[in-house]
Amino acid sequence: MSYIQPAEFASKMVDAGESKIFMATKDTLIRAYMAGAILALAAAFAVTIAVNTGNFLVASLLFPVGFCTLYLLGFDLLTGVFTLAPLAVIAKRPGCTWPGVFRNWGLVFVGNFAGALTTAVMMAIIFTMGFSQEPNAVGQRIGQIGEARTLGYAEAGGAGMLTVFVRAVMCNWMVSTGVVAAMMSSSVSGKIMAMWMPIIVFFYLGFEHSIVNMFLFPSGIMLGGEFTWVDYFAYNEIPVVLGNLVGGLTFVGGMIYATHFKESPKRKPIKDASTVAAE
Amino acid sequence: MSYIQPAEFASKMVDAGESKIFMATKDTLIRAYMAGAILALAAAFAVTIAVNTGNFLVASLLFPVGFCTLYLLGFDLLTGVFTLAPLAVIAKRPGCTWPGVFRNWGLVFVGNFAGALTTAVMMAIIFTMGFSQEPNAVGQRIGQIGEARTLGYAEAGGAGMLTVFVRAVMCNWMVSTGVVAAMMSSSVSGKIMAMWMPIIVFFYLGFEHSIVNMFLFPSGIMLGGEFTWVDYFAYNEIPVVLGNLVGGLTFVGGMIYATHFKESPKRKPIKDASTVAAE
Amino acid sequence: MSYIQPAEFASKMVDAGESKIFMATKDTLIRAYMAGAILALAAAFAVTIAVNTGNFLVASLLFPVGFCTLYLLGFDLLTGVFTLAPLAVIAKRPGCTWPGVFRNWGLVFVGNFAGALTTAVMMAIIFTMGFSQEPNAVGQRIGQIGEARTLGYAEAGGAGMLTVFVRAVMCNWMVSTGVVAAMMSSSVSGKIMAMWMPIIVFFYLGFEHSIVNMFLFPSGIMLGGEFTWVDYFAYNEIPVVLGNLVGGLTFVGGMIYATHFKESPKRKPIKDASTVAAE
Amino acid sequence: MSYIQPAEFASKMVDAGESKIFMATKDTLIRAYMAGAILALAAAFAVTIAVNTGNFLVASLLFPVGFCTLYLLGFDLLTGVFTLAPLAVIAKRPGCTWPGVFRNWGLVFVGNFAGALTTAVMMAIIFTMGFSQEPNAVGQRIGQIGEARTLGYAEAGGAGMLTVFVRAVMCNWMVSTGVVAAMMSSSVSGKIMAMWMPIIVFFYLGFEHSIVNMFLFPSGIMLGGEFTWVDYFAYNEIPVVLGNLVGGLTFVGGMIYATHFKESPKRKPIKDASTVAAE
Amino acid sequence: MSYIQPAEFASKMVDAGESKIFMATKDTLIRAYMAGAILALAAAFAVTIAVNTGNFLVASLLFPVGFCTLYLLGFDLLTGVFTLAPLAVIAKRPGCTWPGVFRNWGLVFVGNFAGALTTAVMMAIIFTMGFSQEPNAVGQRIGQIGEARTLGYAEAGGAGMLTVFVRAVMCNWMVSTGVVAAMMSSSVSGKIMAMWMPIIVFFYLGFEHSIVNMFLFPSGIMLGGEFTWVDYFAYNEIPVVLGNLVGGLTFVGGMIYATHFKESPKRKPIKDASTVAAE
Repeated sequence: MSYIQPAEFASKMVDAGESKIFMATKDTLIRAYMAGAILALAAAFAVTIAVNTGNFLVASLLFPVGFCTLYLLGFDLLTGVFTLAPLAVIAKRPGCTWPGVFRNWGLVFVGNFAGALTTAVMMAIIFTMGFSQEPNAVGQRIGQIGEARTLGYAEAGGAGMLTVFVRAVMCNWMVSTGVVAAMMSSSVSGKIMAMWMPIIVFFYLGFEHSIVNMFLFPSGIMLGGEFTWVDYFAYNEIPVVLGNLVGGLTFVGGMIYATHFKESPKRKPIKDASTVAAE
Repeated sequence: MSYIQPAEFASKMVDAGESKIFMATKDTLIRAYMAGAILALAAAFAVTIAVNTGNFLVASLLFPVGFCTLYLLGFDLLTGVFTLAPLAVIAKRPGCTWPGVFRNWGLVFVGNFAGALTTAVMMAIIFTMGFSQEPNAVGQRIGQIGEARTLGYAEAGGAGMLTVFVRAVMCNWMVSTGVVAAMMSSSVSGKIMAMWMPIIVFFYLGFEHSIVNMFLFPSGIMLGGEFTWVDYFAYNEIPVVLGNLVGGLTFVGGMIYATHFKESPKRKPIKDASTVAAE
Repeated sequence: MSYIQPAEFASKMVDAGESKIFMATKDTLIRAYMAGAILALAAAFAVTIAVNTGNFLVASLLFPVGFCTLYLLGFDLLTGVFTLAPLAVIAKRPGCTWPGVFRNWGLVFVGNFAGALTTAVMMAIIFTMGFSQEPNAVGQRIGQIGEARTLGYAEAGGAGMLTVFVRAVMCNWMVSTGVVAAMMSSSVSGKIMAMWMPIIVFFYLGFEHSIVNMFLFPSGIMLGGEFTWVDYFAYNEIPVVLGNLVGGLTFVGGMIYATHFKESPKRKPIKDASTVAAE
Repeated sequence: MSYIQPAEFASKMVDAGESKIFMATKDTLIRAYMAGAILALAAAFAVTIAVNTGNFLVASLLFPVGFCTLYLLGFDLLTGVFTLAPLAVIAKRPGCTWPGVFRNWGLVFVGNFAGALTTAVMMAIIFTMGFSQEPNAVGQRIGQIGEARTLGYAEAGGAGMLTVFVRAVMCNWMVSTGVVAAMMSSSVSGKIMAMWMPIIVFFYLGFEHSIVNMFLFPSGIMLGGEFTWVDYFAYNEIPVVLGNLVGGLTFVGGMIYATHFKESPKRKPIKDASTVAAE
Repeated sequence: MSYIQPAEFASKMVDAGESKIFMATKDTLIRAYMAGAILALAAAFAVTIAVNTGNFLVASLLFPVGFCTLYLLGFDLLTGVFTLAPLAVIAKRPGCTWPGVFRNWGLVFVGNFAGALTTAVMMAIIFTMGFSQEPNAVGQRIGQIGEARTLGYAEAGGAGMLTVFVRAVMCNWMVSTGVVAAMMSSSVSGKIMAMWMPIIVFFYLGFEHSIVNMFLFPSGIMLGGEFTWVDYFAYNEIPVVLGNLVGGLTFVGGMIYATHFKESPKRKPIKDASTVAAE
């Protein structure tokens, strides 16, 4: 019985949100640091595949190794806590407050950023033989990604800002679906298969993920990309964080909470068949 | 024991049909909205793959990520409720009536359409950098799909209408087989593998799916396809809905009901071996 | 404990054979009809892949979606009942007789044929836009397959008849191994993986399957293949049915019955270790 | 709990070895005959893929379908009993003697050979349209394989004999690892995945397998290969059988027996944690 | 319930570390010997694929067959004991001391080296037809790998040493994640899927693994690579061993110990929800 019914995984989501709010600072930071570092390495892996093979689909099919590994290891991404932590407040769990949510989000942001930067520095050493050579092909490509996805949006003005925001909304719709997917199964193979699906979609369609970008853009600056930290934050990281927040909370957290956690009574009370549909 | 025997999954089908009829309006709409939105995104994903790689088989092999994800999340497609809801009436479940079935179908149609449109608008923003540029290659392709599959059928007259109807019948034969497939297993990996199979077939063979089309054709109109909303409804959506209804109800709901739910007695009552065959 | 030991799946084979003999006419026909229709659709799917990609291996790797789906749905192919039904007579199950076996085989043949023809007609409508256009590339290819595998054998005379017979023997050795494979596991993923293996082999090596041919050859005649119904029956369907019968019954039914169902006593009775080997 | 700990699968290996020694002649022969026939068909399948696609890696990735199927069916290869049967004698199981081992090996050799020959004859009929035509491309290729791997080794003299022996040692190291792999899991999917891994390695690296060669070389002679039965036995089959024996018994049977079946006491008896490592 | 929660697999890691310290010399050596030999063969397999196909990604996707097989067989790599053994000392398990850790590391190093050398000699025989011919294409490639990854680093001076060290750190971060991954699941399929992911990443990104190198560099010297044993140890093996130690112990052993084994109390003790996140 490895599939977990919607009503049950919706409860797990609220429980998980509550546990994030009460998690000790040390554990929150370590888990966020490792999550950021692993996701960043997966991004480096995927870009390397894309450059070497010229095939972005193959890169996208393998990118989920990072996401799956970090969630199985019990680590946390900002995109996930955006979706989960508020549910505990909305469900009025005792002691769960918005300040507790913001505290969790802040710590996870810091931890994810530090982890992604650690990977960025180590990979930059590898891409440049300890900064003694020009960046290799992959290193150069990373610089270019950063330019197109900061200055490119900036040039398009308000339409560009709308686009980056929508891409970030779509991103965390899929990424948080991956987080929920891991809660649907009690087996490792089931978790991996269920997580893999939405993560491929987000990566292949070029949606904007705030933690992946914590690796790509700082790496880009280190490796010669022609854009600044201000460009990165103004035209990418900040709108992406906001889009990720909106996408995860509305399309995943909010919708599942509304229909599976707070399911309405049947029109006529014959029997409880609420969970049969997806079995 | 993750495989569920035919007699048992046939019962689950009738139970699921009953639960659709009694589901509250709010839950019916939310679940249909999310199902439509996710399936639409999977269609956008598959078209993007097909355009970028020129390989429609690869697109078809990955399209099922959307179907599998939405069913695991407990959401509902019109094609599925076409097949399941009537079984509860046919099985004379107390309180289950045809008006209840039609009410469910109507709500799911509305929810699916709203969800698919939401995805269509968001993807159109991405394809056109917030409507500030010409549609990219994928956006242009979506316009062309719509033309061929409305005006193309219309040009062939009655033979075209027959063809679109048969393609819709075949479509929901396979898609509803996917819905039943999810009921055959109690594990996530089993559900995913079993659902994946018929969904690949329907997508690769170009069968017509009413909800996928709720994304493709409105997107096509937004992105410059040379056909009208009337063309879309008259030559595609309406015959496809009818074909989906006939295909799901006869080849899946009806047949399984007739032989597995209402299995005839053995010719000679030695022992109950009815379920051994498929074990 | 999802693997089922040889002694146990051998028993399930005899039980399944018995249940076929006693199955009501209605259920036998419906299950055969649906099995024939689904396998035919899988053949249409595989031919389409082969034509579009020019790669018959890819087509073969995906062809098993039909076989796996129909067995999980509890439907029956003639090739399977050839192997299973006689075991109940050989094992002297009460009430199981050869006339009962022949009755089952006859009904399943009729049901499979009707199902395959239904798919053939519907796919022919799609291949020809409701018979208003020339067959498309896939439709044309199906006509050619039929010529080579009727008149091609006929030209080679006795050697051709021997070849088609051997190909049919080899076919049902593999296909019935797939039927047994489904009985080895109690989980859906195990059943699918175990069934997939022998089905790929049969399809890729061009072995002759009587039900696949019930789709290919009638389709071929409808789509302009230059051979007759008499050619089809004389040079293909009849020798293939006989070869399928011999192959399934000797290499699968007979051998497993002889060594796993009727296992000989150990040379020295120390302990029962008969099933350890394959664990 | 489908993973079986090393101490436990080591016991299963000894039990399986014992059961081989006591198995009735009839069952030993049937199981060896079927194993040889199925492995031979998998070899024919793999060579066909290699010839048609020109890609030996793809052939190697699919070759394991035969090995996995035959072990799941409870059949026996000589390479497997080389590794397992002696363990029962070494472990001093009552009644287990070296003559009993040799008897088992002799029967399995005969059965494997008969099975492989059966497949060879049937495939030769297919490759030559009942011996009425020249062998097709696959048939011709099989002849060439045989020449290179008999006369090729013979030309290199002692170095050639060393090479064929080492290739045979490496072969059964991997193949018997596959046999043990099947004992590590109680589920079909786990068995298949674990068996698949070492079998790919052996096949892709061109290691020499005595039963695969029982198909390839007799087929080669039938299909026009320019080497004799004496060449086959002297320069291939005999050194390969010896190498397979040494490889399976030392690298698999011996090593696992020595460390997992006869595990030494802990240096300091705090607790039994011997099996934690691989969990 | 095949997924094992973080708190539980963290305990298993400490238990495993303890069991390594107390393992008898014989068992430590045999298990290390076999692990080194199997990993070396997987490296030979991957290099062969890379040379034959020119596609290093395909080689990397298949390389994990060795790692997965050896861990399922209960064998030990130096990279794994680097991460696990110290945890037992840090956790103050009775009798666990640093000398005990160093003893284990020394024995595993010796065993891994002997196993890798055994495979290197046997594969060199195969690559050169018993040293009677020039090395084949794969053999020649192995020589070149060794040159680039010894003298190449040496030429870059301190930056080169930094690079090789960072590559080794990254390597064992991933490889030890694979070791932990195997402890997350109680099923074979779950273990294999979870191990596969980080091993692909390490191999494809060209990270430096001390045991893989025990095969590649000695093979390279045997097969004509233009570098010496001193070059190998000074510019590769020694910095790689140190980097592997640091990477495994900090990013895997240390981090998981700190947050999952020694989880801090919740900020407010409502309930134990520490493990919900990753479920």
